[in-house]
Amino acid sequence: MTDVKRLHEKRTVWWQQDGAHGAVCMIDQSLLPGEVVILTLTHEQQVADAIARLQVRGAPAIGVTAALGMALAISRLRDEQGDTLAVEQAVAHLRNVGELLRGTRPTAVNLAWSVDRMIRHAQQAVRDGCSLPELAQGMQAEAQAIAGEDFEACLRMGEFGATLIADGDTLLTHCNTGWLATAGWGSALASIYVAHRSGKKLHIFVDETRPVLQGARLTAWELQQEGIPLTLITDSMAAHFMRYGGIKGVFVGADRIAANGDVANKIGTYGVAVLAQAHAIPFYVVAPRSTIDLSLASGERIPMEQRNPDEITSIRGIPIAPAGIHAANPAFDVTPGSYITAIVTDAGIARPPYNQSLRALCAGYHAVGTGNV
Amino acid sequence: MTDVKRLHEKRTVWWQQDGAHGAVCMIDQSLLPGEVVILTLTHEQQVADAIARLQVRGAPAIGVTAALGMALAISRLRDEQGDTLAVEQAVAHLRNVGELLRGTRPTAVNLAWSVDRMIRHAQQAVRDGCSLPELAQGMQAEAQAIAGEDFEACLRMGEFGATLIADGDTLLTHCNTGWLATAGWGSALASIYVAHRSGKKLHIFVDETRPVLQGARLTAWELQQEGIPLTLITDSMAAHFMRYGGIKGVFVGADRIAANGDVANKIGTYGVAVLAQAHAIPFYVVAPRSTIDLSLASGERIPMEQRNPDEITSIRGIPIAPAGIHAANPAFDVTPGSYITAIVTDAGIARPPYNQSLRALCAGYHAVGTGNV
Repeated sequence: MTDVKRLHEKRTVWWQQDGAHGAVCMIDQSLLPGEVVILTLTHEQQVADAIARLQVRGAPAIGVTAALGMALAISRLRDEQGDTLAVEQAVAHLRNVGELLRGTRPTAVNLAWSVDRMIRHAQQAVRDGCSLPELAQGMQAEAQAIAGEDFEACLRMGEFGATLIADGDTLLTHCNTGWLATAGWGSALASIYVAHRSGKKLHIFVDETRPVLQGARLTAWELQQEGIPLTLITDSMAAHFMRYGGIKGVFVGADRIAANGDVANKIGTYGVAVLAQAHAIPFYVVAPRSTIDLSLASGERIPMEQRNPDEITSIRGIPIAPAGIHAANPAFDVTPGSYITAIVTDAGIARPPYNQSLRALCAGYHAVGTGNV
Repeated sequence: MTDVKRLHEKRTVWWQQDGAHGAVCMIDQSLLPGEVVILTLTHEQQVADAIARLQVRGAPAIGVTAALGMALAISRLRDEQGDTLAVEQAVAHLRNVGELLRGTRPTAVNLAWSVDRMIRHAQQAVRDGCSLPELAQGMQAEAQAIAGEDFEACLRMGEFGATLIADGDTLLTHCNTGWLATAGWGSALASIYVAHRSGKKLHIFVDETRPVLQGARLTAWELQQEGIPLTLITDSMAAHFMRYGGIKGVFVGADRIAANGDVANKIGTYGVAVLAQAHAIPFYVVAPRSTIDLSLASGERIPMEQRNPDEITSIRGIPIAPAGIHAANPAFDVTPGSYITAIVTDAGIARPPYNQSLRALCAGYHAVGTGNV
């Protein structure tokens, strides 16, 4: 079915061990597709900055990055202070690093979920009487476990999502939800990859996804590498092609999903969902269970990141608007569950009413103590 | 009411007479707002190129530009060949120039309307036994008449449109429909200008309008100069701010309006209209009667300009997508009349059913022989 070997060659963020020194490595996505530059980060502050600057982005990918960043913090602390440092002090530092990382991007729940899980793991290590080297080892292992689970979740989302795609389909996607956005081969794009590799002929309309152009820069690049036919469009063309382009379904990812199925995702998603409903086109959200936040009854409570208006008034440093004007830059919007045909997770496909279906899918998952309930 | 004197200071395209030599002058809108460069064009081919390159754009403005271009063609011909040239030969040349200009941008009917009117005027001059200098003089006068009528039409559209705007309103607009788009102070923006100058407090959400960014570059610049508070947003944010931003109305222009009220306008307009309807927000189209094409029963028959995909894959020459990918670039879309709350013209406000209301508004206008029926 899935070509896992080939998938392993594509990775967006990973741990690098060089003797006693650890580092977090990642593709600098802010430079794609023009340049493929690998960043080697040796301090947790650099990891936080990379997340804030969107050098790594995508809800699952920043969850994995934050976990690796916390493993890096302990590794760096050992380098600096040696192994005589009290484990409790190391854990206190980890809590601060967790706050630092958590503050970079408030909307995607995967990041907070990942930080919480790493801190819980460290606290357990203290209770277990671990030494500092053992704590460091355990943190690396836990970060790798999070990455590994995300990799597996991508495989399962791909398989489930592909069942919603027919041979010959023309689909539309917004933002980037592929291997650059996860530790595996993606969420929404994984469904498209699985469908494509199983022999279904597809054509993908790719929203460029202003302001940061993740569609034009990242999704178009991923699909091109995979050999899947695509048409890049501006976000403003989606309605026109829904009417005339034969689009059979919309596939997007998610940054946080509330208990009622409201979905926070890249700005523009809500508009695409309203347009899809107006054209009677199914609208699918694909995300791992780590994106579901059952503690929030609805999307109204999801914290919304407001980014720098410079992303609107200039492109790659070139001004495209008059100096001194006011611009808004909400990074996300909320799509009410009522616009969503189905939510595809790594544990299966949820359909309305989401209050019941999401809770059912997450039952076993949350019981293992991942803590986002 | 309207500060006509101040309006005359703002002009986007005009005739310049330097002794015996004429020229068409315009602000190079492709460089705004960074640079304000005036182009002085002395050959009709330059005028055609300027229209094709969007150095001048906006349906009424390119209609006026084409008329001035035809006056320039005769002026240049006299410079080159002297006044012994037969008038019939001059008119034959004008027909070729008309085809050249008409071919630059197929969607906006004002351009074809203007070319037809200039040719009819030339043919009448031949029938009247005019000399070549008289023909040249007449062509200049006719072009100026078209510009003058557009100026007056803008005043009236502004007055009619402003009646739809209340003190304190937050509005949304797409593309540029101000003085840069017309020979006066605009179509949709004229309504906003009149409302603002009459003391109504307004806040305008400005869609940046990818790919050519007429909203970010031109509308934001115009509103800033006028002192009207604005928020620049990406096109993908319109839905979010319709839901949460208190938007009370959408005002857009038009490039061609069919007899049933279907409106061709800048790509993205259709999506905005669907979103407005979903949020129960009135959607207004503002355009002079020269934009109405009663010869077309519906929008299905409006010719749609497809522009170079480079406008999608690069911004100001900088690539923003992988090399070699396919991109679509329809310059316009069609909004069905069923999404349009009212069409504001220089002769009054048309409401559904448009088949009746538009024909009624145009009755006198078309009777004077402007020929777009």
